[in-house]
Amino acid sequence: MIFYEQLKFDAQGLIPAIIQEAKTGRVLMMAWMNRASLEKTIETGKTHFWSRSRQKFWMKGESSGHTQAVKDIAFDCDGDTLLIQVEQIGAACHEGYQSCFFRSVECNGATLKVTEPQLATPEDIYGKK
Amino acid sequence: MIFYEQLKFDAQGLIPAIIQEAKTGRVLMMAWMNRASLEKTIETGKTHFWSRSRQKFWMKGESSGHTQAVKDIAFDCDGDTLLIQVEQIGAACHEGYQSCFFRSVECNGATLKVTEPQLATPEDIYGKK
Repeated sequence: MIFYEQLKFDAQGLIPAIIQEAKTGRVLMMAWMNRASLEKTIETGKTHFWSRSRQKFWMKGESSGHTQAVKDIAFDCDGDTLLIQVEQIGAACHEGYQSCFFRSVECNGATLKVTEPQLATPEDIYGKK
Repeated sequence: MIFYEQLKFDAQGLIPAIIQEAKTGRVLMMAWMNRASLEKTIETGKTHFWSRSRQKFWMKGESSGHTQAVKDIAFDCDGDTLLIQVEQIGAACHEGYQSCFFRSVECNGATLKVTEPQLATPEDIYGKK
């Protein structure tokens, strides 16, 4: 069975990729891939994405050095979502948190709290702008 | 800080929700929510979604009985993805697997393998059609 034929890219040619830290099971981020970025990810063993806001192909860590080494690529029953296990170098989130999911909703659904420590500031990672 | 104001729903009014099993850290599925299904999820403590293919509001487990009890709702730095921790009753996948991500790519990127056991067939879950 050919892998790419099992996948459904959306009208923009994109598929969401959930990035999970292989060692801890923590979900680090979700980003979008087109076929070229998925091919590059498989070819190089480092995650590559497509930025919808910047309309740009990018490698995770290209400016921060916080790359992701790919350990496994799975996809779901509908073939429209990827789940990629990685070894994360540094913090995954551009805001300096290990995971982009660093805020949770309080139980009443109306407020939120920061649930994990900030490891570095964006300035630490990218330099002052 | 008001939770809903932190979220970015897309042009169709939808936001992707990653569903993770709280106990094991396993990613079970990814599905889409609109604001109404998110509000219903928070109100009832059971996951509700919006089906893009059926254009229909649905509760996970409404036909299979395989509901998801919500333990935590987090969202990412961009506010455009949810990560929901659940306790899963039965199998999450409509194909009878615990997780919808039951297939992985072999290392050459061209083939795939089933990586986990099928717990039940769809007929077991939904009855013969």
